[in-house]
Amino acid sequence: MPELVLLRHGQSQWNLENRFTGWVDVDLSDNGVAEAERAGALIAGHGLSFDIGFTSVLKRAIRTSDIALARADQLWIPVEKSWRLNERHYGGLTGLDKAETARRHGEAQVRLWRRSFDTAPPPLPADNPWRFDRDRRYAGMTPPASESLKDTLTRVTPYWDGTIVPRLREGLTPLVSAHGNSLRAIMKLLFAISDGDIVSLEMPTGNPLLIELDRELRPTRAAYLDSARAEPLPAAPA
Amino acid sequence: MPELVLLRHGQSQWNLENRFTGWVDVDLSDNGVAEAERAGALIAGHGLSFDIGFTSVLKRAIRTSDIALARADQLWIPVEKSWRLNERHYGGLTGLDKAETARRHGEAQVRLWRRSFDTAPPPLPADNPWRFDRDRRYAGMTPPASESLKDTLTRVTPYWDGTIVPRLREGLTPLVSAHGNSLRAIMKLLFAISDGDIVSLEMPTGNPLLIELDRELRPTRAAYLDSARAEPLPAAPA
Repeated sequence: MPELVLLRHGQSQWNLENRFTGWVDVDLSDNGVAEAERAGALIAGHGLSFDIGFTSVLKRAIRTSDIALARADQLWIPVEKSWRLNERHYGGLTGLDKAETARRHGEAQVRLWRRSFDTAPPPLPADNPWRFDRDRRYAGMTPPASESLKDTLTRVTPYWDGTIVPRLREGLTPLVSAHGNSLRAIMKLLFAISDGDIVSLEMPTGNPLLIELDRELRPTRAAYLDSARAEPLPAAPA
Repeated sequence: MPELVLLRHGQSQWNLENRFTGWVDVDLSDNGVAEAERAGALIAGHGLSFDIGFTSVLKRAIRTSDIALARADQLWIPVEKSWRLNERHYGGLTGLDKAETARRHGEAQVRLWRRSFDTAPPPLPADNPWRFDRDRRYAGMTPPASESLKDTLTRVTPYWDGTIVPRLREGLTPLVSAHGNSLRAIMKLLFAISDGDIVSLEMPTGNPLLIELDRELRPTRAAYLDSARAEPLPAAPA
């Protein structure tokens, strides 16, 4: 039966500093590297073998994949990178310290931006230091100015349906190393989670989530490899 | 004009121990990691931007690519891995200490195996510990029992012609991170080096070789980025 593993990247330098990161290409912290190593040890310990990997174009997810695969002695598998698996784009919140954002916009507004399915933060100012519009990795497209979780889902969905699902149907076992919100989008698609419920799904970092599927690619079982650091999982869809 | 960079992987644990490695998936030594870091710093220092990477299915070349690209802040580029870029398969010499091999087979015979274009070493014994025939990364093919440099060229050529050359024609700049003999094969194809001369071409490890091409993909200029550690280069073909 088909199966896949979802892996949320380990701690980044800005996670540590409590800043909104989104599309900024921040590296893993030392702790994040250690989390990726542990993820690889869990994968090896469970005897999981991948045929292909998918990740974003952001180094915190790419390095999590590389470090975990190296630790599991599977660095040789093909790995595809796509901006469609990037973290949610936090628009004008990008780079802000979360406490500063709360002081500036109010706790309630920040909670709405973070916890609403379809409310996007204000757009990234044109004079921002990151200039995703000039970044070679986004050549040929217009990066968003800001994204709601719904916007993230909208751009993850074609990649899931058009690239990952066909590999699952071929019988390949993928490792998907990505971000809190691109993984929420995949979980929403797999488990048919409602718009209201998806915003509160929390996935621990560096803890591989093994999902077993039936022939119609409906989840039959899901479990974090490190059960001591698990978060609640949705029920399999009816 | 099209250009590409060839990068020979840094020192591996078995290079350090002076053993024939071939297809055994030996990791970089600490020095090899440092060489890959320096290669990335050279790439960054020369302002080189890659569009795509190619490497083997052996971790010493994959990690060299990953470490160098990370250092040059280009870890996001797509990287394709193929067994066709693997090191030459040393057959029955695999795993042997080079001094021990010389004692067992004689210096002259070892020199012939290493320095002849078309003489392959004896086949890998069926009871070898690596069992490439059961390795998932070689599923669907029969790994060779041993290779001459000519055999290596024979399996590199379709990958060069069918996968790398089309990308060069599209105007993409590739980084090819590979091994002493798979890179000799590419150099032979690019510079039309004779069978007799190719065996003595030496390429330094961890020193990116930038090759500029004309519209017909003939080399017009080639230079190691670290000129202090350069080896002689062939003349551009007539």
